[in-house]
Amino acid sequence: MSKLNSVGKSEIRKDAVSKVTGESLFINDVKFPDMLYAATVRSPAPHIKILGINDAEARKLPGVKGIYYAKDIPGENKVPLVFQDYPFLADKTAQFQGQAVGLVVADDPISARRAAALVKIKYKELPAVFDPLEALRKKSPKIYGKDNVFKKFVIKKGDIKKAKADVEIEDTFTVNYQVHAYLETQGAIAVPRDDGGMNVYGSMQCPFYVQDAVAKVLGETYNKVKIVQQTTGGAFGGKEDVPSIVCGHAAMLARLTGKPVKLIYSREEDFQSMSKRHPGWVKIKYGAKKNGKIVFCKVKYILDGGAFATLSPIVLWRGTVHASGPYEIDNVLIETYAAATNKVPCGAYRGFGQPQVSFANESLIDMLAEKLNMNPARLREINAIRKGGTTATNQKITESIGLLKTMALSKKSAGWAKKWKKPSARKGVKKYGIGMASSIYGVGLGAGGQHLAKSGSFVQIEPDGSVIIAVGNTEMGQGARTVLSQIAAETLGAPYEIVDMMPTDTSRVPDSGPTVASRTTVMSGTSVMNACKVIRGRIDKVVRKKLKAKGKVLSENGFYKIGNKKISYTEVIAECWAERVHLSHAGWFRVEGTTFGEKDGQGDPYYVYTWSTMIAEVEVDTETGLVEVLNFISAHDIGKAINPREAEGQIQGGSLQGIGYALSENLVIVKGRMLNPNFTGYIIPTIMDSPDIKPIIVEEKYPKGPYGAKGLGEPPLICAAPAIANAIYNATGKRIKALPMIPERVKCA
Amino acid sequence: MSKLNSVGKSEIRKDAVSKVTGESLFINDVKFPDMLYAATVRSPAPHIKILGINDAEARKLPGVKGIYYAKDIPGENKVPLVFQDYPFLADKTAQFQGQAVGLVVADDPISARRAAALVKIKYKELPAVFDPLEALRKKSPKIYGKDNVFKKFVIKKGDIKKAKADVEIEDTFTVNYQVHAYLETQGAIAVPRDDGGMNVYGSMQCPFYVQDAVAKVLGETYNKVKIVQQTTGGAFGGKEDVPSIVCGHAAMLARLTGKPVKLIYSREEDFQSMSKRHPGWVKIKYGAKKNGKIVFCKVKYILDGGAFATLSPIVLWRGTVHASGPYEIDNVLIETYAAATNKVPCGAYRGFGQPQVSFANESLIDMLAEKLNMNPARLREINAIRKGGTTATNQKITESIGLLKTMALSKKSAGWAKKWKKPSARKGVKKYGIGMASSIYGVGLGAGGQHLAKSGSFVQIEPDGSVIIAVGNTEMGQGARTVLSQIAAETLGAPYEIVDMMPTDTSRVPDSGPTVASRTTVMSGTSVMNACKVIRGRIDKVVRKKLKAKGKVLSENGFYKIGNKKISYTEVIAECWAERVHLSHAGWFRVEGTTFGEKDGQGDPYYVYTWSTMIAEVEVDTETGLVEVLNFISAHDIGKAINPREAEGQIQGGSLQGIGYALSENLVIVKGRMLNPNFTGYIIPTIMDSPDIKPIIVEEKYPKGPYGAKGLGEPPLICAAPAIANAIYNATGKRIKALPMIPERVKCA
Repeated sequence: MSKLNSVGKSEIRKDAVSKVTGESLFINDVKFPDMLYAATVRSPAPHIKILGINDAEARKLPGVKGIYYAKDIPGENKVPLVFQDYPFLADKTAQFQGQAVGLVVADDPISARRAAALVKIKYKELPAVFDPLEALRKKSPKIYGKDNVFKKFVIKKGDIKKAKADVEIEDTFTVNYQVHAYLETQGAIAVPRDDGGMNVYGSMQCPFYVQDAVAKVLGETYNKVKIVQQTTGGAFGGKEDVPSIVCGHAAMLARLTGKPVKLIYSREEDFQSMSKRHPGWVKIKYGAKKNGKIVFCKVKYILDGGAFATLSPIVLWRGTVHASGPYEIDNVLIETYAAATNKVPCGAYRGFGQPQVSFANESLIDMLAEKLNMNPARLREINAIRKGGTTATNQKITESIGLLKTMALSKKSAGWAKKWKKPSARKGVKKYGIGMASSIYGVGLGAGGQHLAKSGSFVQIEPDGSVIIAVGNTEMGQGARTVLSQIAAETLGAPYEIVDMMPTDTSRVPDSGPTVASRTTVMSGTSVMNACKVIRGRIDKVVRKKLKAKGKVLSENGFYKIGNKKISYTEVIAECWAERVHLSHAGWFRVEGTTFGEKDGQGDPYYVYTWSTMIAEVEVDTETGLVEVLNFISAHDIGKAINPREAEGQIQGGSLQGIGYALSENLVIVKGRMLNPNFTGYIIPTIMDSPDIKPIIVEEKYPKGPYGAKGLGEPPLICAAPAIANAIYNATGKRIKALPMIPERVKCA
Repeated sequence: MSKLNSVGKSEIRKDAVSKVTGESLFINDVKFPDMLYAATVRSPAPHIKILGINDAEARKLPGVKGIYYAKDIPGENKVPLVFQDYPFLADKTAQFQGQAVGLVVADDPISARRAAALVKIKYKELPAVFDPLEALRKKSPKIYGKDNVFKKFVIKKGDIKKAKADVEIEDTFTVNYQVHAYLETQGAIAVPRDDGGMNVYGSMQCPFYVQDAVAKVLGETYNKVKIVQQTTGGAFGGKEDVPSIVCGHAAMLARLTGKPVKLIYSREEDFQSMSKRHPGWVKIKYGAKKNGKIVFCKVKYILDGGAFATLSPIVLWRGTVHASGPYEIDNVLIETYAAATNKVPCGAYRGFGQPQVSFANESLIDMLAEKLNMNPARLREINAIRKGGTTATNQKITESIGLLKTMALSKKSAGWAKKWKKPSARKGVKKYGIGMASSIYGVGLGAGGQHLAKSGSFVQIEPDGSVIIAVGNTEMGQGARTVLSQIAAETLGAPYEIVDMMPTDTSRVPDSGPTVASRTTVMSGTSVMNACKVIRGRIDKVVRKKLKAKGKVLSENGFYKIGNKKISYTEVIAECWAERVHLSHAGWFRVEGTTFGEKDGQGDPYYVYTWSTMIAEVEVDTETGLVEVLNFISAHDIGKAINPREAEGQIQGGSLQGIGYALSENLVIVKGRMLNPNFTGYIIPTIMDSPDIKPIIVEEKYPKGPYGAKGLGEPPLICAAPAIANAIYNATGKRIKALPMIPERVKCA
């Protein structure tokens, strides 16, 4: 095996300089000549019948170029997501406060917003439902189908009724919304093309979803709709579904006006209208033997989907698959529901249905440990899935299983053995506590998105040896551009410095699915690697000819080597060009064989799993209820860190988002009205709130991943909240069963 | 063989609507925010030593942002063309009037031009040479090397001294410049990228030449330099080399200012500075037997290259290879030279060194026919290369040889047999005449550009079945976008309407050589076809599965068929996407085996030839010298017309340019000073000057071309001038031996 030249090194981020210097162009920095600006007219109430619209005053405003409604849509008024229930613009009814009803275009953004505010929607309020449990009751107002159920799933492994436990424990947990709080709000610019097509530039994660949406809203063929991702200021799942709407609106207006149209959301309307992490309700029960072996797990998990399905079905699916945690349990029954309510739709947020259920199951593990009079770390170790073990879906784990290692290393790093004491042992007003939680994370879309489990790429070596790569996944701050450049550099034998990725553009590569689910390193990485291997094969032939040698060609520090003969990369590439060797290739990768039984949820839902353990140390002020996280350890088995520093960055960022989710982020919606749609009222952690987050990388190689890598993006958030909840309990003896664990709750618990 | 669905049909041009409606965006229509405008400071005299520059006054002009010179170039001051003799900006000396010395950037184009006019170059004039024959003399001032010879070639077949002729004839012919007179002058916009790279948009034929130039002038790696061809308003060879300079200048200024920079040439500076068709001098001699069989041909051919080599070496090469015409002659001696003079450099113009020498050899054929007392058509038929015959380079022509057919069909169409009479038979002041000329045209770059004989492509079928193609060659009005879409549609079985080509972009496809030499249909066409075949192979598997049938899959009107079973294209593509079949591919094509002996010019310089015959009918006013072309027949064996209407358009446009070259286009440069750099003084034919040009397409299939096609772009111009010269002689008995045949010359001959 060749020594690695770039993979495994902490190469400098490709976008580091331009982001630090401010040269990066985010969508709001971009202008086109004769560009118009748009603003959105929104539903003033949670559930309304639209009786009429009076926009006479708005149209009189200087600079206003047009106001458009559902009837003006050139194509279809359905946002193509998992279902087709969400209209681009509300027509006869609107189902949540903030839903888009109309669009204004004007010469400048202020006039557009002013005009939008002047549009008067005449309406009558319809009966509404705001609580997901109520929504599922027979007599509730129905806003989706006959039962308000977007989706339900069942997992049934073994038979929980036959399982004989010595100890049983059950409790109910609730979690609130989480808002993505990306630095950059939603935004897009649509530009009519001179061939009649439409180019759309925007802040987004999933350009192919957007392409689909824009093609549909315009009634245009896909080859005339080019979507280019602009430098994106954070996404975290929040730019998975919503850009389909934002870009669809911009494209529709560009088509109707014949001009470029920019649509940028204010922070408030971003809060009010964009998909969030689902609030949820989890009732969970474990049964265990005295020795700690868990023999059954029963879960009922309900997500509050909001007014339209968007991604709820697949968010629910991931939560379902992982509802019983990273443990081998022979008897499992999981029932899950995504319910419709008259609130802002919920969608993807880092973790995708898992943090909610992880808060429940990992809190309950600690409660079970206490009942068993056992160190909770020990209980986790006893039940942890090992090589050859099975998951809740009865998937046999045969490789790349580093769960116990994440537990061992994080315990060692924290000094768990010395620091963990029973809750009753803590004294004083300010109390110290330590808590732990673990998780299993299925990498990629799995069986829930099998049709999307594909990834295209394009790799080209230029005449001077520099390399262009293009993929269908996006750089949104997570480091894809850097990591994929490293994989290409490694596979081609090219210096990392002269490899770079083009902005993601739907016309360059085939639909490669979304940039979600920690799938980019594996999916785009393998696709890029596959393309590079084809090109490398052509290069190797030239190397053998030039070196007059046979056998395997290795690469090292800008040279190709066979035995002790070597020749520089630059010289070989020049020779390839002189011989007119084809140095471009379109790569492809698809994943086969994931399964999930309709009736019992049994099967192999994911091709590989990332395993994680987190330990939180906290100090709880028992008088104020304020929780300070003193230290945070976040350990993840990711197969292989292509770029260790970037992996550590992912771990730190994700864990801090998990801390915010645990302690402070509290969106308040009362009777469908959002009360704090801004950072004054919705508190995210700042650097002052951040503990020293210590990342630990475990590398249990995944042989089918690029250079052994699995996925990392989502796991660092997932079990942060239960680790903190367990630490709070460890400090105070008080079990907080609702997120966020704001001071009021901690104090009053 | 499957029936053809799109190839061979006169499908509607892809750019027809946007060009007719004015929606097409040419480079001057494009704006970027904060864009600056550039203008060029030029050498005031033909050969100068620069002593100093005073730009104080220019810098004071409001709006001026900077003035830059050779010393400010971030990278290398050499335009990378065939040689490296041409600097982006003159440093110590300038070698022609109009050569770029400095560049001004300003807030608006008028201020930029005003400032450029205010820059004072202090200089002393150096000895200059303006005539190529004088340039080759020992005592002439030397501006290139020791002998002013950019390049020389020799072709030696047989031994002209041993050839025994009954009749010999020799004469000397001269030809003048021809200016491309495209509708749109040279122009570019360079835009700094937020990753430190540079995007350049411009009017151009050869984006990869431009990429090379921009990378060099900036000192940047190629993967950071993306060149995108903007809709281009005509080129004809004039946008082959010059855009490297224009785009290089814009890129340099964008780098130095950090802003987008637009540089658009005025018509006058375009005339003064851009490469033109070479003036030339041809001395030619034929020897023939009494029966008309030509036994030897001797040619001395000198091109006036101007101040820098640009493309002169390869223009000369094509002229050399074709200097003895489309005839089988056993003994040939051709000596050719490209000489340096202190005038604007010459480069590529449709025909590329051939129209000059064709004027000489096809005029002399008629003179020989008269000496032999033979119908000139008959003399051509006797000597025409037939299947199995050999060219001047001793290349054996084994296939696709329709020369005699072009002669027969054009004669028939003209009524030659009845109309052609000996010159003495014509009476009156206004005299009717008919003339003929034929040519051989090597398709593509041949051995003279073997390293460029490659072509990349990218083809992608979108989820709705619509198709994107991308190639490295450009659409510049000749119809590439349409023809390549037809080839893709045909090969994939897709409806033509949903196939289209992306704007040419160097980052999408590998260096595919230039868009010149009638090479695009064969080179990019085959590359696209190759890519489509790979994708089609994947599609066919799905068709067989869906139809539960084996065997060859045919396509017909949007359906795939096996035997009598059929399934729609749309259904199959949907199934391919459902199965995640990879529907993208990067295609490649390269041509092997062309040769040209250094010493004797023997070999197979081209892989295939297009054969042409033109017949002109004229009326000459013997009192004014005015020649009216009454009728013009232009017949070409092009293998296969992918789109007959587009092919006819090429023939008509090229022939009319040939008529302008023959009769009116007369650039006057006196002592290195251009006297008529505009359309007031330089007369191109208008629609009022255009006769009915009748295109005749002969299809002698070229088995290795896409669907049998060869090249057509250049041939329609090549032998127009000698056909008209022969017609004038036929009318008047006066042999005009210099182009253009303006009234003064015709009257005084």
